[in-house]
Amino acid sequence: MHSISPAGRALARLGGCVRLSAQMNKNSSSMMALAPNTSNKRETVCIFGTGDFGRALGHKMIQSGYPVVYGSRSTQISNLIPKDAEVLGHAEAAQKAAIIIIAIPRQHYNFLTPLAEVLHGKVLVDISNNLKLNQYPQSNAEHLAQLLPGSKVVKAFNTVSAWALQSGTLDASRQVFVCGDDVEAKQMVMNIVRALGLTPLDKGSLLAAQEIENYPLQLFPMWKFPIFLSLGLTAFFFFYCVLLDIIYTYIYEKNDFSFFIAITIPNRVCPVMALILLALVYLPGIFAAIIQLYRGTKYRRFPDWLDKWMLCRKQLGLIALAFASLHVLFTLVTPIRSFVRWKTSTRIISQVMNNKTEPLDHTNAWLSDSYLALGILGFFLFVLLGITSLPSVSNNVNWREFRFVQSKLGYLTLILSTAHTLVYGGKWFLSPSTYKWYLPNIYILSLIVPCAVLVVKFLLIFPCVDKPLTQIRQGWERNPKYSEQSNYIINKSAV
Amino acid sequence: MHSISPAGRALARLGGCVRLSAQMNKNSSSMMALAPNTSNKRETVCIFGTGDFGRALGHKMIQSGYPVVYGSRSTQISNLIPKDAEVLGHAEAAQKAAIIIIAIPRQHYNFLTPLAEVLHGKVLVDISNNLKLNQYPQSNAEHLAQLLPGSKVVKAFNTVSAWALQSGTLDASRQVFVCGDDVEAKQMVMNIVRALGLTPLDKGSLLAAQEIENYPLQLFPMWKFPIFLSLGLTAFFFFYCVLLDIIYTYIYEKNDFSFFIAITIPNRVCPVMALILLALVYLPGIFAAIIQLYRGTKYRRFPDWLDKWMLCRKQLGLIALAFASLHVLFTLVTPIRSFVRWKTSTRIISQVMNNKTEPLDHTNAWLSDSYLALGILGFFLFVLLGITSLPSVSNNVNWREFRFVQSKLGYLTLILSTAHTLVYGGKWFLSPSTYKWYLPNIYILSLIVPCAVLVVKFLLIFPCVDKPLTQIRQGWERNPKYSEQSNYIINKSAV
Amino acid sequence: MHSISPAGRALARLGGCVRLSAQMNKNSSSMMALAPNTSNKRETVCIFGTGDFGRALGHKMIQSGYPVVYGSRSTQISNLIPKDAEVLGHAEAAQKAAIIIIAIPRQHYNFLTPLAEVLHGKVLVDISNNLKLNQYPQSNAEHLAQLLPGSKVVKAFNTVSAWALQSGTLDASRQVFVCGDDVEAKQMVMNIVRALGLTPLDKGSLLAAQEIENYPLQLFPMWKFPIFLSLGLTAFFFFYCVLLDIIYTYIYEKNDFSFFIAITIPNRVCPVMALILLALVYLPGIFAAIIQLYRGTKYRRFPDWLDKWMLCRKQLGLIALAFASLHVLFTLVTPIRSFVRWKTSTRIISQVMNNKTEPLDHTNAWLSDSYLALGILGFFLFVLLGITSLPSVSNNVNWREFRFVQSKLGYLTLILSTAHTLVYGGKWFLSPSTYKWYLPNIYILSLIVPCAVLVVKFLLIFPCVDKPLTQIRQGWERNPKYSEQSNYIINKSAV
Repeated sequence: MHSISPAGRALARLGGCVRLSAQMNKNSSSMMALAPNTSNKRETVCIFGTGDFGRALGHKMIQSGYPVVYGSRSTQISNLIPKDAEVLGHAEAAQKAAIIIIAIPRQHYNFLTPLAEVLHGKVLVDISNNLKLNQYPQSNAEHLAQLLPGSKVVKAFNTVSAWALQSGTLDASRQVFVCGDDVEAKQMVMNIVRALGLTPLDKGSLLAAQEIENYPLQLFPMWKFPIFLSLGLTAFFFFYCVLLDIIYTYIYEKNDFSFFIAITIPNRVCPVMALILLALVYLPGIFAAIIQLYRGTKYRRFPDWLDKWMLCRKQLGLIALAFASLHVLFTLVTPIRSFVRWKTSTRIISQVMNNKTEPLDHTNAWLSDSYLALGILGFFLFVLLGITSLPSVSNNVNWREFRFVQSKLGYLTLILSTAHTLVYGGKWFLSPSTYKWYLPNIYILSLIVPCAVLVVKFLLIFPCVDKPLTQIRQGWERNPKYSEQSNYIINKSAV
Repeated sequence: MHSISPAGRALARLGGCVRLSAQMNKNSSSMMALAPNTSNKRETVCIFGTGDFGRALGHKMIQSGYPVVYGSRSTQISNLIPKDAEVLGHAEAAQKAAIIIIAIPRQHYNFLTPLAEVLHGKVLVDISNNLKLNQYPQSNAEHLAQLLPGSKVVKAFNTVSAWALQSGTLDASRQVFVCGDDVEAKQMVMNIVRALGLTPLDKGSLLAAQEIENYPLQLFPMWKFPIFLSLGLTAFFFFYCVLLDIIYTYIYEKNDFSFFIAITIPNRVCPVMALILLALVYLPGIFAAIIQLYRGTKYRRFPDWLDKWMLCRKQLGLIALAFASLHVLFTLVTPIRSFVRWKTSTRIISQVMNNKTEPLDHTNAWLSDSYLALGILGFFLFVLLGITSLPSVSNNVNWREFRFVQSKLGYLTLILSTAHTLVYGGKWFLSPSTYKWYLPNIYILSLIVPCAVLVVKFLLIFPCVDKPLTQIRQGWERNPKYSEQSNYIINKSAV
Repeated sequence: MHSISPAGRALARLGGCVRLSAQMNKNSSSMMALAPNTSNKRETVCIFGTGDFGRALGHKMIQSGYPVVYGSRSTQISNLIPKDAEVLGHAEAAQKAAIIIIAIPRQHYNFLTPLAEVLHGKVLVDISNNLKLNQYPQSNAEHLAQLLPGSKVVKAFNTVSAWALQSGTLDASRQVFVCGDDVEAKQMVMNIVRALGLTPLDKGSLLAAQEIENYPLQLFPMWKFPIFLSLGLTAFFFFYCVLLDIIYTYIYEKNDFSFFIAITIPNRVCPVMALILLALVYLPGIFAAIIQLYRGTKYRRFPDWLDKWMLCRKQLGLIALAFASLHVLFTLVTPIRSFVRWKTSTRIISQVMNNKTEPLDHTNAWLSDSYLALGILGFFLFVLLGITSLPSVSNNVNWREFRFVQSKLGYLTLILSTAHTLVYGGKWFLSPSTYKWYLPNIYILSLIVPCAVLVVKFLLIFPCVDKPLTQIRQGWERNPKYSEQSNYIINKSAV
């Protein structure tokens, strides 16, 4: 018999490998003392299928004190199967446990139908994953529930990787999404999840199974568009700068400034990208307001592109913050750069040679200090916005607070950043010498979107525009077919 | 009939707008496949009231596959009401569903009393909000429960904004606070919350309703005092610096240093504010210890001002960190400033003109490197303290760890920051020339509070003071009226 | 009678001290209005033991509207006990409540056995803590459950400190771990936890009690090894640098550079530590891959040291990030240092004296800009890795995303950091003058581990090595005793 005291033996063999929960995984030895009296308490779990994930889950369960029975076509004991587990035929194994984990692929679910009688009333845990998003019209768990209507199907464990279970290195999310129509069955599975040191998250009824099955297949879906947009714009501005700053200089001034590629040009592209992306965060809100004003209602859907744009504003903002941070770092290393030190000493030496001392240029001092101060304040607010978008912080503020931060502070950040760029790059607007090959400097390009956003936003906060907009957003319609006011006069005949 | 397959139609019409949960909202298309088989599974939900929030919630529910019935005075279909919803009289609508969402203002709750019989045994979801904190002595939900004692009242959804539900841009908290006296009713509502892609948070019985109703009305209540204090102090120190550094210089030395307003003075005010606020974080703890030592007990309440002060220490500390970060940024841009570059070259040129080279001043090199190193280490620890106060991090440490970080590392930060200021500003203490208009330099002002805190704290850790304090904090009293020791002698007669 | 309206009186006396929950603790006054109608709703709670924690919990419960009855040997009222609580004999007190909080030490649990009959069917809440980890083979709560098999034992509250409850300053974790075998009893206790403004966290059955009892005794157990390792290495490199940079220079060049201790040497040690620790994060993965390739299976445990190493990779990485951040700060203050400013002006003056201007050294400009750019990008990615390891962020990414970030971005960070060091320190490799006392420069020492990791990793991604490794990690074995394929042919006889 393999199942008499599996926990004790498993623990003796597996040693320090037991780690219970996210917050308690700090002291694995605590489980050792726990083991002896667990074997007679935990209910037996049956696992159908001896594939990789079935074995990994079995190992982990035995470590956590569960007697495990494998249901398999062949009852010969493989050395792959955890030593303390029993291996029986499917029907025999199923009879031994109230919970059966279905660790076999969806294609083979049909083979369970002859077992319907044995599985009647049992909790079946569907742990399967698909190879691509929405592979089947119906989720695997719902398919299983349809095949075996007498069993209680619970979806769980599919978001955990076998490798992670095996190695115990659960650094990533310990959350296990659980869904199912039977509340008690779900509760039983959630208890096992907790016992394995993971955190169950109830996602409601079995209707959520499709989502749960799609979840582990995703790779930052919301980030795709913002990242591709940023890469494209960055490449464009980078080559634009290479053209104007390196190639132009090389052709007309015979100076080789190719080393500008490392810092000078990145430090021109980063602030431009940060400013444009930050403006793109607030642009869809402007469009939405204009559309609502034009239509006179909020009850019609926005065009699809605007909808999608609004949903990736957070991502756009965070990428803008990344560019701003790089800009700060690139700027702060300026005085350490070999080229800058050479330029400084050359300038001083030439002054000495010419035997003249320049007086302090007050305008220059003002401009230089102003754009630095504006930049610092803008960056500071930007980091604040970034911190409030951390999930744990944004969960701790209410809607009023969130909108205050994201809207008020966000626009202040945009104003400060735009002012920073205007003060810094102002001198380039007028001087014609900056128009190399009749192309504008990228500072000028970078200011178009943010200035447009700020101007239109300024117009939108005028009372004559703001008032109807606020009304529309509170549910008012300019041309309603039939208007029902929300005042409730007690009208007994209608009741 | 509108309710035959609302989900399918709603989804077809609303397209990519469906987003289920915080962690699963990445792939909206996954819901499309889910839609067809949901319509016959989700239970019908009734909504009383066709105001803005009622309509927004109805839209969202239809998108998530719930058949929705509106209860309204007038059963004419308005184009504001979601197309796939039925509109019936209140009584008729209520009979169709087990859950009725009361989307009407509290003032009109009386109109529900004639419906008591129809609503008997039904789950009523109170989603109302008030206009100001504690507007009524009794929460809306408890008022509703009193009016209809036969119904099961659950408070929910009031923290979600209609605009957010409508637009789908749930960037902020997805948490929906739920409370109610009936566990099953609460569970039913929580399932709907999950199905809408939000996260229910059980806040216990209906007694929590007042709190839940107050929650969305708050705007950073704990931050108000720390922010006003900081603004006041900042303004004071700013004008103090303007007086001494710009006006004094202009009057007596005829130099116009007005551009100091942009960076030089902010970079004098920020470190002063950071140091003072950091000391103010630890000052109430000192006061509390003195009061407890004096009273000889911990079982009497602190004065009100101390209680409030202790509760906003985290906020004070975070504002101090913000000032420290600004100080770091302002300091690091120093070499890029036009004024500083001018000063450097002027100094070098004057050395050349006088034909002398200064040897390395070792004392100066030591002082300069020491205060920079102290400042860097202090700032580093300060950032560490800030990170551990993030909700998700502080939830993952136990009390012992939290107190170790906040107390031990906190005091180390204060010591390092004070030492940084002392080493940097030390030279100003003695030289009389720094006392312009007999006013002390702000470095001296900034050191008063932190030095006082450190000296008293140093006295408090002496064993002769620390021992009684520790005893008091473990429950010991110096002059108890009646003292009961915690040793348990088995005393059968007392049992 | 003390229990008629304890809540009202308690609140009147305790004033602003009431704070309900983590997210709602912003407005304590909201509870005042709540108080009057609570007294007749909350069920009575009995507390056995009038020690410090028992009193603190009683205070808090009365504030939250619970009638509290103390069970005590002596029924004389002590002024330590909350004024609104009743004090009765143990048996009498227990009869008044369904929930009894056992606030007495484990050593005195035996005294409860005579009360078994009175306590039959009651919910006993074990709140005890031990003095050291795994003090008893059986957890206190399980011991209690064994003594009183007729009662429903729930473990809770042991992770909350009496001081925190008393002072209301619950800045740290508000999570209360709850475990117990009876679901309803657990639910009752969790409702009390919520009413006290804390967040209950269900940890499953009473088997989790040992863990919960060990939790508050820990002090960063996972951080111990990484911190000691870092301290040791830091001390070694620090003295190595002192030897070569200060002592050697003093002996052979008669220059006193002792002030290098403050910034120059820390800024040499920090990057070295950051690079080595980052490489040590990826080294165990390399070892694991080699071991798996050699053994031809993933189903045998790794040696213990490797297991432990793999479990503290996150901590190693975060310490590496701390060193990298310090390196960045130390580097950025370089131009402000008195010594550096002196060196710069001396260099310029000597150029002037010699009447020559150096032309721009393009190679130098390239090298200087390249290593700065590489360092900035590497640090940027490193900070990104740090942010994704915040619990709230890592809980919001799935396994695929987590592995993408930690593996792909992690290796990119390592490559950039190594390249940064190579470009910066490259010149020291060849020049023999850098081998003071035949000892290599620490740049050379720092590159050994990261280069080794990168070279082996490069070999491991060759298809001829990667393919068998991937197979092994998917569960394939090179020499299985008995091999069961995971294809499920419907085999009715086996069923």
